[in-house]
Amino acid sequence: MTVRSANVIGLGLIGSSIALALTERSWRVSGSDIDGSRVERAQQRSAIAGTGLDRHADVTFVAVPVLAVPDAVKQALVETTGVVTDVGGVKGPLASAIDDARFVGGHPMAGSELEGPDGADAAMFSGAVWVLTPVASTADTTFSTVARVIADMGAEVVALDPQRHDEVVAVISHVPHLTAATLMGLAAERSEEHAALLRLAAGGFRDMTRIASGHPDIWLDVCAENREAILVGLDSLIEALSVVRGVVDAGDRQGLFERLEHARHARHNLPSSVTHPETLAEVRIPIPDRPGAAAEIFTLAAELGVNIPGFEVVHMAEGHLGVAVVLVDARYSERYRGGLIARGFRPSIQPLA
Amino acid sequence: MTVRSANVIGLGLIGSSIALALTERSWRVSGSDIDGSRVERAQQRSAIAGTGLDRHADVTFVAVPVLAVPDAVKQALVETTGVVTDVGGVKGPLASAIDDARFVGGHPMAGSELEGPDGADAAMFSGAVWVLTPVASTADTTFSTVARVIADMGAEVVALDPQRHDEVVAVISHVPHLTAATLMGLAAERSEEHAALLRLAAGGFRDMTRIASGHPDIWLDVCAENREAILVGLDSLIEALSVVRGVVDAGDRQGLFERLEHARHARHNLPSSVTHPETLAEVRIPIPDRPGAAAEIFTLAAELGVNIPGFEVVHMAEGHLGVAVVLVDARYSERYRGGLIARGFRPSIQPLA
Repeated sequence: MTVRSANVIGLGLIGSSIALALTERSWRVSGSDIDGSRVERAQQRSAIAGTGLDRHADVTFVAVPVLAVPDAVKQALVETTGVVTDVGGVKGPLASAIDDARFVGGHPMAGSELEGPDGADAAMFSGAVWVLTPVASTADTTFSTVARVIADMGAEVVALDPQRHDEVVAVISHVPHLTAATLMGLAAERSEEHAALLRLAAGGFRDMTRIASGHPDIWLDVCAENREAILVGLDSLIEALSVVRGVVDAGDRQGLFERLEHARHARHNLPSSVTHPETLAEVRIPIPDRPGAAAEIFTLAAELGVNIPGFEVVHMAEGHLGVAVVLVDARYSERYRGGLIARGFRPSIQPLA
Repeated sequence: MTVRSANVIGLGLIGSSIALALTERSWRVSGSDIDGSRVERAQQRSAIAGTGLDRHADVTFVAVPVLAVPDAVKQALVETTGVVTDVGGVKGPLASAIDDARFVGGHPMAGSELEGPDGADAAMFSGAVWVLTPVASTADTTFSTVARVIADMGAEVVALDPQRHDEVVAVISHVPHLTAATLMGLAAERSEEHAALLRLAAGGFRDMTRIASGHPDIWLDVCAENREAILVGLDSLIEALSVVRGVVDAGDRQGLFERLEHARHARHNLPSSVTHPETLAEVRIPIPDRPGAAAEIFTLAAELGVNIPGFEVVHMAEGHLGVAVVLVDARYSERYRGGLIARGFRPSIQPLA
C-alpha cells in the first residue's frame, strides 16, 4: 500500500484529531499552526510527521477558525496540488467565496470539551456524521477522494447543499447552544435571590446546560456567519415557547400531553450517529460522465433519508469515471433506487447475505 | 439498635427506592400501592417487609402522584401515629392544604429513566439534594426526624419555604423540561423537510433533549400545580431569548461574548449535588424552645447559601429541645454564625481538624 500524505492546517482539537487519526492509518501528515507550541505538542504526540505544507499532499485539511477558512483554503489551493477540504461549522459563505474543482467543504459533527493537540483523539470521528457540501464546481474526484478519507477515519459521510447544512445546524446545534447558555444565565441570575437555587440543579439541568461550558470564541464566529438561519431558528423557538406558555396558562392538559408525547417519541427515535442496519443492500451505480455525479449519489441519499454506512468507488477501464458501490439499509434500497433512476442513474441492487 | 419502622405509600420509582434504601439500613418497611403488581414486585425485591399501613410506623413517606398527595397525606395523618412526609415535585399547594404539626413536605432531587419497583435503586439519594419545606405548623421533632432519615439515606437536606421551592424548581427543572421538549419538537418538525436533520444531532443536542424522553404524565400535574411560577419562568426565558436574538441580529460580538462567558462561568461553578468541602467546621446550636426553631436552622443555611453536609441533634436533659450539631464548609461558617445570631440563636463554632 502506497503511503498517502495529508496537510493539516490548524492544530486545534479537530485538526489534531484528524492528524492523529490519519497518522495511525499510516498516512504521512504535515501540520502547521500560527501557534508554534501547538505544532510542538502535535509532534510530541506523534500526530504529525513534518511541519509546514507538503506541496504534493493528496489532501489538505483546513482546520482554522471559521472566519479564517476562506483565505486559508485559497492559499492551500495555490500552494498544493491535491484536493482541499475544511472543517468549519458554517458552509454557505464559504461556498460563495471558493469556486474551485479541487475543493469541497466539510463539517465533522464531533468534538469534546478538550482543546488543542492535548485533547486530540484518533477515534473522535469513529461513529460520527461528517457532512460534505459539494457544489456545482466540485470535481467528482475531489468529492470521492475526501469522502474516502473521511470514511477511513470511521465517520459516515452525509452530503448536503451548503445552505441546507447551515439551516440544519442552526436547528440542531446553534439555537440549542444559545438556549443552553440562556437557561444557564437565567438560573445564575435567579440564584442571586435564591442562594440554594443552583444546588437543586439535578442531572436534567446539568445535561441541558453542559454545552454552555465551552469556549465562547467559536460561537461568536458561528453566529456571525450563520446569522440568518439562527435568527429564523430563534424566532421559531420563541414562537413555540409562547404556544407552550399559552397551553400551560390555559390548563390545557390534552394539548400539553400531545406536545410532550410528540417530543418523547421523537427523542426515542433519534437515530444513533452511525446506524448499523441489520440488513444491508449493495447498490452499484455507474458514475456518468457529468460534473457532480459522484456527489449527487450522496446528496440524493441525504435528501431521501437514506444513510450510507459504507461505500467505495471502483475504477474501470472502459471510459466511465467508475462505479460507486454503496451500502445502504436494505429497507430503504427501493426508495433510493427510485430516486437514482429519476435523476438519470442506472443503479443495480443486490441484498447482502 | 432499635429497629425503626416506616410506611411507603406509592411504590413507583421514588417510593420503591426509599423502601429499598431503608430496608438496607435495617428498617422495617410496609408498602402499599393501588397497583397490586407493584406491591408484589417490591416484595420480590425485598424492598418491603409487609404490606398495608403500619399504624405505629415512625415515618410515613407518601410517594403518590402529585395531585393525589394531599388526600393521601391527610389519610396517613389519621391512620398512623408517626410523622408524615411526601416526595411531590410541587410544594406550595400542598402546604396550603395541610396544617399539621406531624407533617413536613419533601422533594428529593433525584430520579432516573426507569419506572416502578424494577427501577428502584437503594443508592438513588446518595449524593442528592433532598428539599424539605417546613412551615409554621411543622413541629421541630417532625422536621428533625424526617431530616435525620433522609440524611441516613445519603441525601443532603436543604430546607426551603414551599413557595420558594416552587419558584426555584420552575427555573431549574420545569422550564428546562418544557424547553427540551420544545427544541425536540421543533427539530422533529423540521426533519420532515430535511430528512438528514436528525442524523446530524451530535452529543450536545442529545444531552439537551434527554429529559424530553420521560413520561409526560408527571409533567401534566406539575404544570397544573406550579402554573404561576412556570409562566413567570417561561416569560423570562422568552424575554431573554429575544434579547439574544437582538444581539445576534445586530452582530454585537461583545454583547454575545459577555452572555456566553457569563453562562460558561456559571456552568463551571455549578455546585456538585453534594459538596465535600475540604475543611469543615462544627456549629453547635442550642435549639430554643420556640416553634420551628430546628427547621429555621436549616432554612437559614439555604438562604445564606451554606450547605450542611452532616448534622445530628443531641438531646439534653436540662429542658432544652436539644443541641443541633451542624457541619458546614469552614469558609462559610462566619456567614452562618452572623445569620444565626441575627435570628436569636447562640451558635458556637469549632473548626474540625
